[in-house]
Amino acid sequence: MSGWLESLEGLAASRSKAGLTRRLRPRPAGDPVVDLAGNDYLGLATHPAVIEASIKSLPTYGLGATGSRLVRGSAVAHAELESDLAGWIGAESALVFSSGYLANLAAVRGLTAVCDLIVSDAYNHASLIDGCKISGTRTVIAPHNSPADVARLLDAHPGRALVVTESVFSVDGDLAPLAELHEVTSARGALLVVDDAHALGLLGPSGAGGVAAAGLAGRSDVIVTATLSKSLGGAGGVVAGPAPFIRHLIDTGRTFIYDTALPPAVAAGVHEALRTARAADDRRALLAARGALTVSLLGAAGFAVSPPAAGVLSVLAPGPEAAVAWASDCYDRGVAVGCFRPPSTPDGSSRLRLTLNAGVTDADFARALDVIVECAP
Amino acid sequence: MSGWLESLEGLAASRSKAGLTRRLRPRPAGDPVVDLAGNDYLGLATHPAVIEASIKSLPTYGLGATGSRLVRGSAVAHAELESDLAGWIGAESALVFSSGYLANLAAVRGLTAVCDLIVSDAYNHASLIDGCKISGTRTVIAPHNSPADVARLLDAHPGRALVVTESVFSVDGDLAPLAELHEVTSARGALLVVDDAHALGLLGPSGAGGVAAAGLAGRSDVIVTATLSKSLGGAGGVVAGPAPFIRHLIDTGRTFIYDTALPPAVAAGVHEALRTARAADDRRALLAARGALTVSLLGAAGFAVSPPAAGVLSVLAPGPEAAVAWASDCYDRGVAVGCFRPPSTPDGSSRLRLTLNAGVTDADFARALDVIVECAP
Ligand SMILES: Cc1ncc(COP(=O)(O)O)c(C=O)c1O
Ligand SMILES: Cc1ncc(COP(=O)(O)O)c(C=O)c1O
Repeated sequence: MSGWLESLEGLAASRSKAGLTRRLRPRPAGDPVVDLAGNDYLGLATHPAVIEASIKSLPTYGLGATGSRLVRGSAVAHAELESDLAGWIGAESALVFSSGYLANLAAVRGLTAVCDLIVSDAYNHASLIDGCKISGTRTVIAPHNSPADVARLLDAHPGRALVVTESVFSVDGDLAPLAELHEVTSARGALLVVDDAHALGLLGPSGAGGVAAAGLAGRSDVIVTATLSKSLGGAGGVVAGPAPFIRHLIDTGRTFIYDTALPPAVAAGVHEALRTARAADDRRALLAARGALTVSLLGAAGFAVSPPAAGVLSVLAPGPEAAVAWASDCYDRGVAVGCFRPPSTPDGSSRLRLTLNAGVTDADFARALDVIVECAP
Repeated sequence: MSGWLESLEGLAASRSKAGLTRRLRPRPAGDPVVDLAGNDYLGLATHPAVIEASIKSLPTYGLGATGSRLVRGSAVAHAELESDLAGWIGAESALVFSSGYLANLAAVRGLTAVCDLIVSDAYNHASLIDGCKISGTRTVIAPHNSPADVARLLDAHPGRALVVTESVFSVDGDLAPLAELHEVTSARGALLVVDDAHALGLLGPSGAGGVAAAGLAGRSDVIVTATLSKSLGGAGGVVAGPAPFIRHLIDTGRTFIYDTALPPAVAAGVHEALRTARAADDRRALLAARGALTVSLLGAAGFAVSPPAAGVLSVLAPGPEAAVAWASDCYDRGVAVGCFRPPSTPDGSSRLRLTLNAGVTDADFARALDVIVECAP
């Protein structure tokens, strides 16, 4: 056996040759860069009321939760947040996790207690894919956003199936046909899990999310998951749905039971962000206007951009190295944009990923679009 | 097909019959209960310097990280924390995750790039078990704390294997024979992953952890994982080891790449906790004294308690309902103790789990022991 570190160096060399080496670029506090890369869609991560709520609860709650939710980790801050999350999303009950990733693992695995087949959209997020894998349940990949294929797969299966999708997809920002998917699942006794990470706070009445926007809030055969780290500007995840399923997760969800709870002071900050987000129709209108502006401006400059369903746009790049250079040049000129390459892109293409951010000023936003055009490869 | 909610209710009824229903008990901010249930061993979660460091960085960093570590999530606060974690643990490099759970998934899965068998201790934490499962790599369970069995399993395997253990086990608080295990692994070209969650800050020189205490810090065939939520009083996780492995995780670790970073203000608080923990030999001495006191006092009262290797003790209970009633009576008298029942206990027995906490006063600690004895079933 050769040394394991040498084997790893070999793998690293192959990635480097393929242009797939990743680099961490730590940002300082109060970073002046214009952010079109993060997921702070509503600009709430630095909202004064949100920061104040978190600061206020730190001395009394302490920094961390000090235990799992079932031991010492559950705080009144979690319970209050859960109650308002359920009300906002329109579900009977909601359960907060320390991350959206762990919430997705729990939701998918938990539902396989009553489902023996998973049908998973081809473009699903890593956490949903890992949820399928960790459940040990037979999983079939459905072509992206194709209710007809889902129907075909369900018709071929005698037992109860689980269909897993995002509402707004995280890389391209396109919208799943949720109403059609639900018609397909409900007619066949299947369950539907929707990861609303990129739609909560952005779509639906008062920002209640993509599931609410599709008229599916509160359906007893729909389970919603989301992260609290995007439009709510904080951290943590949530699973929302019928109370018996939430109880099932409390009793059996491994990533709930065996994980330290979200810091209560983060829960308190997210709770304040939720209140702000519910009332933020002005910010949602601003994002819609900026989305239209971006599409027309970048389209006029000759780029392949599609209209964003919520806050994510993607702009095709010629290849992984070109994408990296493009993003890097933008960064050097004070504009952060996302750069997605395989294996982070579902279809193998490399691209810039732009996120709309209501916390950016109009002037900075306009300048950022200019910089993106000027730095194009 | 009957309704899925009815199926879940049926499963809930079986759990209830077996005494396995779990209940969330949210605590208020500034909870006056004496805490012998959480994992805030050194009492740093509410340490003024820790709280101040977090409060100070909230306005400039914002509440959440707003993106994954590779997109917008990496802050100087993470980089500084990683550098000091590596130095403390004695590893070449360290990588911070949003939780210990996700760190463990990444470490185990990442190592299977160069290992084709996992040997996992029978009492390992859920996150390690899930790491084995999600890796898709053949996994063999080794009897608890048995280097001889590990040697036997490795000898039967021609390829490179990965041995996975905790240092201090999370439920019973017993110590793994790390030096012996490392002799077995190193002689056979196998790698050793040690989850130091319950020893970091407690064992070893300056609290550098169980791996350091065993004289294994910095070995190129040992990878250390830990959570930042126990002795460091915060949240997040870490993987520490040789730089090529850390680079491998940055490039390929799904729970690193596709997960929002730990909030920078939490990283800043944890960093301050690390500085305090390194210098806290006084707190470690206090915990050792309290461990000895607990064993002698509860032992004299006739309970089965074993001397704690670090900060966790377990006290056998006659059964799951008795354990719940015992813990609940203690709680009603102002003392929080852990209550572990199947499936959280590796051997199927129910017990109280006590944790030592340097933040509790001597008087409160003495009273808590009295309460535990008085409430015994
Ligand atoms: C669609 C989707 N689901 C889940 C997650 C995971 O959430 P978290 O970052 O809170 O772990 C993310 C992003 O990180 C996401 O984009
Ligand atoms: C041994 C062990 N490993 C890992 C973890 C997970 O760490 P975290 O709570 O940060 O997810 C825990 C506790 O929660 C633990 O006890």
